[in-house]
Amino acid sequence: MGSKYPRSVRGCLPLWVLTVETAFILLFFFFTSYDDTSTDQETLMGTYRVFQDVTTMAALGLGFLNASLWRHGWSGVAFNLFLLALGAQWAVLLDGFLNQSIRQKTILHLPRIQKATVSALSVLISAGAVLGKANLVQLVLMALVEVTAFSTMRMLGLTVLGVDDHSSMMSIHVFAAYFGLAVSWCLSRPLPKAAEEKEQTATSPSLFAMLGTRFLWMFWPSFNGMLFVQVERMKAVSNTYYALAVSTVTATSVSALAHPQGKINMTHIHNAVLAGGVAVGATCHMIHSPWFSMALGLVAALISIGGAKCLPVCLNRVLGIHDSCGVHYTFGLPGLLGGVAYIVLMVTHSIWSGKNRIFYQVLVDTGALSLAMAMGLLSGLLAGLLLSLKVWKAPPVAKYFDDQAFWEFPHLAVGF
Amino acid sequence: MGSKYPRSVRGCLPLWVLTVETAFILLFFFFTSYDDTSTDQETLMGTYRVFQDVTTMAALGLGFLNASLWRHGWSGVAFNLFLLALGAQWAVLLDGFLNQSIRQKTILHLPRIQKATVSALSVLISAGAVLGKANLVQLVLMALVEVTAFSTMRMLGLTVLGVDDHSSMMSIHVFAAYFGLAVSWCLSRPLPKAAEEKEQTATSPSLFAMLGTRFLWMFWPSFNGMLFVQVERMKAVSNTYYALAVSTVTATSVSALAHPQGKINMTHIHNAVLAGGVAVGATCHMIHSPWFSMALGLVAALISIGGAKCLPVCLNRVLGIHDSCGVHYTFGLPGLLGGVAYIVLMVTHSIWSGKNRIFYQVLVDTGALSLAMAMGLLSGLLAGLLLSLKVWKAPPVAKYFDDQAFWEFPHLAVGF
Amino acid sequence: MGSKYPRSVRGCLPLWVLTVETAFILLFFFFTSYDDTSTDQETLMGTYRVFQDVTTMAALGLGFLNASLWRHGWSGVAFNLFLLALGAQWAVLLDGFLNQSIRQKTILHLPRIQKATVSALSVLISAGAVLGKANLVQLVLMALVEVTAFSTMRMLGLTVLGVDDHSSMMSIHVFAAYFGLAVSWCLSRPLPKAAEEKEQTATSPSLFAMLGTRFLWMFWPSFNGMLFVQVERMKAVSNTYYALAVSTVTATSVSALAHPQGKINMTHIHNAVLAGGVAVGATCHMIHSPWFSMALGLVAALISIGGAKCLPVCLNRVLGIHDSCGVHYTFGLPGLLGGVAYIVLMVTHSIWSGKNRIFYQVLVDTGALSLAMAMGLLSGLLAGLLLSLKVWKAPPVAKYFDDQAFWEFPHLAVGF
Repeated sequence: MGSKYPRSVRGCLPLWVLTVETAFILLFFFFTSYDDTSTDQETLMGTYRVFQDVTTMAALGLGFLNASLWRHGWSGVAFNLFLLALGAQWAVLLDGFLNQSIRQKTILHLPRIQKATVSALSVLISAGAVLGKANLVQLVLMALVEVTAFSTMRMLGLTVLGVDDHSSMMSIHVFAAYFGLAVSWCLSRPLPKAAEEKEQTATSPSLFAMLGTRFLWMFWPSFNGMLFVQVERMKAVSNTYYALAVSTVTATSVSALAHPQGKINMTHIHNAVLAGGVAVGATCHMIHSPWFSMALGLVAALISIGGAKCLPVCLNRVLGIHDSCGVHYTFGLPGLLGGVAYIVLMVTHSIWSGKNRIFYQVLVDTGALSLAMAMGLLSGLLAGLLLSLKVWKAPPVAKYFDDQAFWEFPHLAVGF
Repeated sequence: MGSKYPRSVRGCLPLWVLTVETAFILLFFFFTSYDDTSTDQETLMGTYRVFQDVTTMAALGLGFLNASLWRHGWSGVAFNLFLLALGAQWAVLLDGFLNQSIRQKTILHLPRIQKATVSALSVLISAGAVLGKANLVQLVLMALVEVTAFSTMRMLGLTVLGVDDHSSMMSIHVFAAYFGLAVSWCLSRPLPKAAEEKEQTATSPSLFAMLGTRFLWMFWPSFNGMLFVQVERMKAVSNTYYALAVSTVTATSVSALAHPQGKINMTHIHNAVLAGGVAVGATCHMIHSPWFSMALGLVAALISIGGAKCLPVCLNRVLGIHDSCGVHYTFGLPGLLGGVAYIVLMVTHSIWSGKNRIFYQVLVDTGALSLAMAMGLLSGLLAGLLLSLKVWKAPPVAKYFDDQAFWEFPHLAVGF
Repeated sequence: MGSKYPRSVRGCLPLWVLTVETAFILLFFFFTSYDDTSTDQETLMGTYRVFQDVTTMAALGLGFLNASLWRHGWSGVAFNLFLLALGAQWAVLLDGFLNQSIRQKTILHLPRIQKATVSALSVLISAGAVLGKANLVQLVLMALVEVTAFSTMRMLGLTVLGVDDHSSMMSIHVFAAYFGLAVSWCLSRPLPKAAEEKEQTATSPSLFAMLGTRFLWMFWPSFNGMLFVQVERMKAVSNTYYALAVSTVTATSVSALAHPQGKINMTHIHNAVLAGGVAVGATCHMIHSPWFSMALGLVAALISIGGAKCLPVCLNRVLGIHDSCGVHYTFGLPGLLGGVAYIVLMVTHSIWSGKNRIFYQVLVDTGALSLAMAMGLLSGLLAGLLLSLKVWKAPPVAKYFDDQAFWEFPHLAVGF
């Protein structure tokens, strides 16, 4: 068991991670300090609550969403927390470097950690496509590259294209999905039969994934409404809730339609019930009536189930991309739908309010969406090429999707 | 596997659900709009938190509470989210139709979704008695009927009997339990040996159910105190906490007493630890000293364990009612105890404050409790008769409590 | 199955627990009443949120953290809720008795329940060392002794040594860990081979434990910042977050270093990722720059993994102490590190601010740390001796770590 696993990761991982971690501590020492100005207790607690909701989505939601692989549940769950902890530290530092003069210290406060957690979320989303095909050293590298690319993309969007903060944050779905797919493309090898079996799910792992789905489902309104106040927040929260409700109902029933015997696919449920929340992300604060967000949730669920049914075949066979946890149809496709819905809404808004810069508006919005996708694909390719280097001692294809390659396993426990 | 399962659900479920969903979107389009008046950020966030707590109870609490059946865990968990999403939409619409003139649009705000989630909770409670004996088409129908009946009952209580909002909400336990039992009575058939085995629990499913119990346990104080402010809220929260603490301790030890060898029954624990929260529901804001809520918790746990030990036998054999997840002794009996406690407290209160309309008061309170029970039984019978129609292609008795009838199942996964 | 289990627990447990519970209700009746003064709704809700976070850590965090034993998951999870419910009631009463004149009634409000939940947390921590070696009657006794000892220690610290409330609360880790170890020493017997196998973990139990770890990880900032407001709270929350992030990254990679083949140990991850939160507890509000809490998190994770690797061998072989869930290296050692860090920070603080009572300061702080450790060891020994009495019918060594000794078990379910 595991005797074919290259010993050298033993030296490689701790050395590499402790170096990175020490570097982080030094960077924090030289470049950061806490905000000492007194804040109102109410505001502080409000910020803390939103921060907690985002952390819940990251640590519990995305953590357990990837627990569904039968033989890869431990890695799915534990690597997630590792990547979250590492990614958030790097994102805090980067946020300071990119937005402030290098000479002055970055002032740390809670909204900054919250923003960093969102950046780290992009790593967790992408990890869903790569999971089972990379070891922890490779994932560390991926996290560093992705957080850098995502922060750069957000800065470019904010400064060059003049995108607002919320839209730039919502491009995370498209960015992270295509980043993950690009990395996965670089790492995908034809799977032997045994590895394909390991990809299946089982009763308990599926329930753990369902737990992750629930946490995401419940806190998605917090995530979408994070940056708004008052009426806009109320709308963001409500629209997200209605979109999620409709996509849950639609996804469950359409999943039965897609099976010849009318059976529902649990993996569809894990992913497609969330499609509504993704699709409504960019527009949630602008929609004035719930029917539109509900219609968006319906279409998103249809696209997501359709994608889950058709895309794996074509992506796998034609392009050789293997998407472990269905990141493409959970975040990618509904994210694109949301981007298109945003452009349409902005245009109609411009027409109604009689603005005459409609063409310019469409250009900017399309540019922002394309930027997210292009940046995701390009930086993903870059990361994928880096990860393919032999120096990281990637697991052999026969050990893909296998917890035993990474974990000290109790003998009795195999399979339970 | 599953070849005996009627194919036609494939056509029936998506057709029926997508029609309902489209109708909902149209109704939302014509009859609802958002509240555009600015609200205070603090109030909004406070409302949102309470709304989140109720959603947590519904999606995580009741969702996983029904995960304990060995071979029916997927359905228990996933159907729950489906019913929540569907029921809440219908409840929002109904709330507008019943409480406002049909000519004006329903103004949607967060408290309305919160109220709708509570209505949908009644479906989730009842589903515990029906689970494993109905397919998703039948459950959709049940959800629509139950939400309608529950909303009508609340409106009748509020307008005809003059019951206050909190008491009317707390009748949910009695209403939903007897609704579920009535539906279950219509669907119950003598189970073959193999189906009885599927009813058992196992280690992991039990832990998932325990997770659901914990979430309910933790957020029950939020639920009971939802409609109060200041001192009354503090009392509601504290009384619920003490009642739950005592019923946890009592249930665990009495469960050992009920077994000849002194072993504790896990299913008792899942249900009876919550009895205190149910029993204290109606009176939680009126109790001036914790000892009373603690005593109520103690009695509720005794009744709940006693019911769990004796009722299944008599209900099953004499009446032929099969209660899959013990809804009767988790919600029904403690809810009745809570109703009686409310009447007693109101009477003593009236006597102390020298009011001379005691008889009238008793009449109204007994009327409200009877209304909840009668409405639950009658509408449950109606729903049960509807569900027994052949047109819904109910699963055959041999497929009762079997996930494989509804889910695309990985071959390797059976039993894990 | 289980026929060797002494029947008499059947009579003993309910009799003993119902007597205790009735005594509690009577004590609450005579000695407590609710706070009837009106409080600000905002303040009330703020307090309630913090209280909820602490309950989440106790019921979900520590509850599921102990679920990892393969054959003892049910007891690990369910006994936890029982001890929490019982311990919190006794702690509320004790808090009144120790801090108020016996003649006047204790005024109950939410902060009092919150404080009681923290006291009950000490029982849940210690239970991790004792789990699987004691029956529920013994655990009830342990809970009563431990809550009494912890409340007494806090009162002594506050009144005699003049320790502030936060430091006295943070001594919980050291106190509870050494209390648990002392009890465990009294109960430890050489384990037969079969019982050792039961100590192993398996896939699903490990994921449940991971769930507990996540909840603790996420709400630890709330716990550490509980007693502070404004800037100090912001610092407490941020420092805890950074410490946890670093200890997560460090623990995962160092765990791979500790294994000859570079495999990560899941039990290390459950425990060592939390070491940062423990270590930073006492000092979290005083640290002015994140690098120091990060360094503390790094050292804590190293100590924790080192302890997990070396201590079980020496504790087990030399002293005969068996630590079921690694309480010593999760809470004990990082807690000691935190205590030392506190002393160092206080001294440097005194030097910088030119106070000339440095020696006195060191004396008091060392005294507080020693008090926690001594009180933990002594009261733990006392509790352990009490628990060793034959009258409690302790489970035989062959039934250590075996759910079947306590639970009515479905035949099919063994091992799943």
